[in-house]
Amino acid sequence: MLHADEVCRLVGLGPEELATIARVFPLVTARAGSMPPVVRIDVPEHRGELDIKAAALPGEPGIAVKVSTGFFDNPSRGLPSLGGCVLVFDATTGQPTAVLLDDGYLTDLRTALAGAVAADHLARADATRAAVVGAGTQARLQVEALQLVRPVQHVAVWARRPEAAAALADRLADRLGIATSAPHELAEATRDAHIIVTTTPASSPVLPDELVPAGAHVTAIGADAPHKQELDPALLARAAPFVCDHREQSAQFGELRGALQVGRPPAVVVELGAVISGRSPGRTDPDAVTVCDLTGTGAQDTAIAGLVLSRLRASRP
Amino acid sequence: MLHADEVCRLVGLGPEELATIARVFPLVTARAGSMPPVVRIDVPEHRGELDIKAAALPGEPGIAVKVSTGFFDNPSRGLPSLGGCVLVFDATTGQPTAVLLDDGYLTDLRTALAGAVAADHLARADATRAAVVGAGTQARLQVEALQLVRPVQHVAVWARRPEAAAALADRLADRLGIATSAPHELAEATRDAHIIVTTTPASSPVLPDELVPAGAHVTAIGADAPHKQELDPALLARAAPFVCDHREQSAQFGELRGALQVGRPPAVVVELGAVISGRSPGRTDPDAVTVCDLTGTGAQDTAIAGLVLSRLRASRP
Repeated sequence: MLHADEVCRLVGLGPEELATIARVFPLVTARAGSMPPVVRIDVPEHRGELDIKAAALPGEPGIAVKVSTGFFDNPSRGLPSLGGCVLVFDATTGQPTAVLLDDGYLTDLRTALAGAVAADHLARADATRAAVVGAGTQARLQVEALQLVRPVQHVAVWARRPEAAAALADRLADRLGIATSAPHELAEATRDAHIIVTTTPASSPVLPDELVPAGAHVTAIGADAPHKQELDPALLARAAPFVCDHREQSAQFGELRGALQVGRPPAVVVELGAVISGRSPGRTDPDAVTVCDLTGTGAQDTAIAGLVLSRLRASRP
Repeated sequence: MLHADEVCRLVGLGPEELATIARVFPLVTARAGSMPPVVRIDVPEHRGELDIKAAALPGEPGIAVKVSTGFFDNPSRGLPSLGGCVLVFDATTGQPTAVLLDDGYLTDLRTALAGAVAADHLARADATRAAVVGAGTQARLQVEALQLVRPVQHVAVWARRPEAAAALADRLADRLGIATSAPHELAEATRDAHIIVTTTPASSPVLPDELVPAGAHVTAIGADAPHKQELDPALLARAAPFVCDHREQSAQFGELRGALQVGRPPAVVVELGAVISGRSPGRTDPDAVTVCDLTGTGAQDTAIAGLVLSRLRASRP
C-alpha cells in the first residue's frame, strides 16, 4: 500500500511518464487488451460521484482498477472535493498487488500527460503561446506538461473567477520562468494562442468557435460526464481533424456528445492513437484548427500505475 | 486494511448476516441508491477475468467497489483460481475507508446468504430435504446457510466428479450432523428434494426440468456471465413464480438469458425484493415449483462490507 506522498515521489511530469502515456493511445485505438465501459455511482444527497475505470493492456504486468471520487460538499467539511485510489492486480494471476492511495494524483498526472501527447501530435511545431481556460490543478498541470513537448514562452490564463486566473498566472510565472497573463476577456487570452486547453467542469460551451484563431490546437479536458461540455459544436465541425482518445466515450460523455445532440457532428472523427501510430494524418495545414477531446481511459490508469510499481521495485534493492 | 483471516473472524453464516442480506433485495428492486452495471475485464492469455461490482445503498455509510477474480491457470501455479478484494469508500465524503483483502470470502458468504434468503421466501415451510448440484466451496456454503432458514435433515450432493460429491457429502455430515448422500445419478439426488441448489460453472443446462419434483424450490447460483447456464428453459417456464435478484442482470448474464435466447422466457418474472417486501406473491401452492436465479449484486457487497466495518468498529473500543 502506497500513500500519495510516496506515489508523488515515484512519478511526475517527466519524459518517461510522457512516453508511457503516449504508448497507450495506439493500444486503445486497436482495442487491444480489455477495457470495460466507465461506470459511475451517484450519491446525490452529498453531491457525490464515483467513477470506475479499468483496463488490461498487452505488455502490462498489472491491471488497474481506478476509482475517482468527486464529493462537492467536501469543502464545507474541510476536505478536498476530488479524490480516488487505484487497485492493481497481477495480470497473470489476478492477485491484488498494490493499493495506491494517491488521492487522485495519478489521474491528474496521466490527464496532464495526455494533454501534452495531444499537443505534441497536433499543435504546430513552432507553437510557443498557450492559453488555458480554467484555473484549477489540471489547468496548472496542463501548462507544466506542455513544456515537455513545446517551448511555450507565454501562457494566458482565463477563468470565471479573475482572481483565480491571476493567482495561477503568477504561480506559473514563478514555477516555469515564463511570461504569463490573466486577461479579463477570454478573447484576449486566446487571440494569439497556438495551443488552447480547456479544463473546466462546464455544462455548456465555454470556448466559442470564433475565439479560436487559425492555426491553433485545442485540447478539451473537462467533459467526463453526459452533462458536461466545453466546446462549441461549430469548433468541432471546423476542426481538421477532430480527434478524441476514444470514440465511444467521446460520443457518450465527451465533446462529441454535444455535437451529436445538436445534429452537428464533425465530418471525420479520428482517434489520437491513429494519429500517433501514423494511420491517420494529424495536422496537415499550419493554419488549420485541430481539436482533441480527452475523456480519459482506464488504459492510461493501468499504464501509469504500472510505471509507479516498476519504479517502486527498482528503488527497492 | 483487513486480511482474509480478520474478515472471516468478523462475519460468517449468522442470523444478523442473513438479515443484512435479506434487507438488500427490496432496495435493489426499488432501484434505490445507485448500482452501475457489472463490468468485466478479460485476460484470455491466462484464462483470467475480473468482475467489478459496486453500489451505493440508502442507509449504508459505505460504498463497496468489489473486484472478483477468476484466473483458471492459477492451480498450475499453486494458487487458487478465484479471489478478489473489496474497497470501501465513505458514502458521505468519498474518501477510501477500508481495503478488505478477503480473497473472495465475502462474495462466497453473501452468495450463500442470498441462497438462504431465496429458500426462506420460496421453499415450502416444511422443507427438510435438500439437493445440491456441484461440490465446490459454494455448494458447501449453500447447504450450511440453508440451516439458517429450514431444518434440513438430509442433503444429497451430485457433481460431475463423483469423488468430489462424496467428499462434500462426508464433510457436510461431519460439520452439520445430518444425513447426507452422494448418489451416482442426479435423478436420485433430486427425487425427493424440497430445495435444489445448483452451484456449477456450467455453460449448458445441468438440471433437466423433468428431474425437479413438484413442490421443490430451485436456486441457481452459477450463471454470472453470458456463456453460463444451469437451468433448463422448460423449468423456468414451469416455475410459479420465476424469481431473480435483478431482472436486467438475469436477462444479460443469468438464467433468463438462456430462456430468452431460445424464445421461451417465463410468463412472469418477479424480483426477489418484491417477494420479500410482499409486493409480489412468492409460493402460493405447496406443489408448485419455484425457481430463483441469483446473479449477485453490488448492493449485497456494499451491505456485507458495511457489516464487516460496523463490527470492526464495535470490536475496537
